[in-house]
Amino acid sequence: MIHGGNVSEIEKEYGISRKEILDFSANINPLGVPETLKKILVNTISDLINYPDINYDDLKNAIGEKYKLSQDHIYVGNGGVQVIFDFIRAVKPKKSLVVHPTFAEYERALQGVESKIEEYQLKEESEFLLNVEDLLQKIDEGYDLVVLCNPNNPTGTLTSKEKLKPLMELCQKKGTFLLIDEAFMDFIEAGEEISLLTDCKDWDHLLITRSFTKFYGIPGLRLGFGVCSHHGVLNQLNKQMIPWTVNTFASNFGKVLLEETSYEDSTYQWLKNEKAYFINELEKLGLFKIYQSSANYIFMKLLNDEIDVKTLREELIKHHILIRDCSNFKGLDNRFLRIAIKDFKANQRMIQALKSVFNC
Amino acid sequence: MIHGGNVSEIEKEYGISRKEILDFSANINPLGVPETLKKILVNTISDLINYPDINYDDLKNAIGEKYKLSQDHIYVGNGGVQVIFDFIRAVKPKKSLVVHPTFAEYERALQGVESKIEEYQLKEESEFLLNVEDLLQKIDEGYDLVVLCNPNNPTGTLTSKEKLKPLMELCQKKGTFLLIDEAFMDFIEAGEEISLLTDCKDWDHLLITRSFTKFYGIPGLRLGFGVCSHHGVLNQLNKQMIPWTVNTFASNFGKVLLEETSYEDSTYQWLKNEKAYFINELEKLGLFKIYQSSANYIFMKLLNDEIDVKTLREELIKHHILIRDCSNFKGLDNRFLRIAIKDFKANQRMIQALKSVFNC
Repeated sequence: MIHGGNVSEIEKEYGISRKEILDFSANINPLGVPETLKKILVNTISDLINYPDINYDDLKNAIGEKYKLSQDHIYVGNGGVQVIFDFIRAVKPKKSLVVHPTFAEYERALQGVESKIEEYQLKEESEFLLNVEDLLQKIDEGYDLVVLCNPNNPTGTLTSKEKLKPLMELCQKKGTFLLIDEAFMDFIEAGEEISLLTDCKDWDHLLITRSFTKFYGIPGLRLGFGVCSHHGVLNQLNKQMIPWTVNTFASNFGKVLLEETSYEDSTYQWLKNEKAYFINELEKLGLFKIYQSSANYIFMKLLNDEIDVKTLREELIKHHILIRDCSNFKGLDNRFLRIAIKDFKANQRMIQALKSVFNC
Repeated sequence: MIHGGNVSEIEKEYGISRKEILDFSANINPLGVPETLKKILVNTISDLINYPDINYDDLKNAIGEKYKLSQDHIYVGNGGVQVIFDFIRAVKPKKSLVVHPTFAEYERALQGVESKIEEYQLKEESEFLLNVEDLLQKIDEGYDLVVLCNPNNPTGTLTSKEKLKPLMELCQKKGTFLLIDEAFMDFIEAGEEISLLTDCKDWDHLLITRSFTKFYGIPGLRLGFGVCSHHGVLNQLNKQMIPWTVNTFASNFGKVLLEETSYEDSTYQWLKNEKAYFINELEKLGLFKIYQSSANYIFMKLLNDEIDVKTLREELIKHHILIRDCSNFKGLDNRFLRIAIKDFKANQRMIQALKSVFNC
């Protein structure tokens, strides 16, 4: 498995302490662990002596209240990725369609249930934007499951709710499950208006997954959730569920969701400022084609022919900077890369490092 | 799923604060979260901003060093129960044999892979002790997987290494995988001499699972491991593995394993004293048949015909005490119960509560 955020590997391979690595390869909120959560963690250490609530009622209540969802439709898991695997195991599709380039774990999960997998490729000439009409024609061929990520990882492209509506309709009509991973939706300030979370109630072939990892700066805590109203899938999820998958600390995250307000505001403020600044500085370098991103990361293509992303990654590691080489995403080559938007100082260091690597 | 340790349910159903419940239904070390772990937790909160090491090298190293195992044979998971599910998914047995009465999750995991499941019942008239010769004959009928728990949950019965050897030999010879859950083995002071952990190296059809939950008083943290040297199973585990299943806090548990020594000693000291005291007091009551237990819990049968375990459980909840009604274990009826051995004060309260319920 090759993913971003592997600072342990860099620490071991290059002998650079993880504390000295500026990790632009994982798309994590640089504001870090919310203060409300830190307090909860310290105060609940002795609670580890109890099993977490096997039903996670408080957590589901809080998620339901926050996102206006029925608790019965909420499924919580050990990180968004576990929810994706569990949903795919519950649907057990014979034939699936995955919209690429995208997060590699959808395919790994589909391989796990021995699904026939077809690829639907977003086109570079269309800036990797999803052409829903074209996708509808493809879906009309007949699939048990269609998987897409919105906003998409690694491209950062967003498909509006309006555009996704005919997709929901077709899938519902054809009995095709539509799994949309909204792991980065909460970085969009008006994200809850674009999200299809609340639509799951009315469209029982729609499955949405979410992650708390990225927005709340806590990939180490492991917490995500999914929403689904399909009785068969919900029953199957219940049947196959491993008990106590969400640890006690993560099970208390509901309090953070409901009580932490300044963290959200600060995140939107940071992202607005830093994204504009960072993209502007990157553009000034003239080294990359920069794609329009709706998320907290930037997807780019090297314009310079003399260097590929693998080499660029190696050069930047010398500056203790880690980027995501996107050449192992389906449909991308060794000229594509993804970098997270971090805090001002880190972003500045990235610009300086790029200037140094390219002598500009 | 009905399991012990569901204090959240009691809190909600009976309106008793979880802090006031004496939980004898979960078999957790009452010494609580080790001090070394508490320090690590407090000091690594800000590390949550990084993904845990996707390979868990440090954790596997520590487990390897502690239990004298090759790191290549160690598989870590989000609690012992996840390791059990993952092992069973990797073996994907068509026909399995489970030794009952036992932990219900083996069967749930087997149902998940649509295995044909047969039951091998331990006999009440043999004090629920495993008759290996009899089991060998049964296994000779041909199975893909045999599952047993040693020491067994809920009976507390232990089968010696000597007795298990012919079982390993037959399984290896017949190509039958033998999964032994040693979740409670570390409560036995000489447990590592009885354990089959290190035998996995030489017997590639032997699979052992372990939990850190019980011994280290941390069911809320979620950490367990398994050992296996079978190339096919190891490859399959790798293929099907969900990334980042072990959270950052649990991934740092290796330091506790290697550096915490007094916790182990204190645990053996506590168990030796309290087990003798508690069993003696329980016997004096004359209410139960008490089975010989090698673990940190006591399996008993009500002698009194006027009350069943469900009623006893309800009565004890009035005293804010929770026991494990074992009537939903296969082969047991509403006269069997399991209680954890807790600290002196708690055990004393249990005895008092029993005296009060039975007016003795």
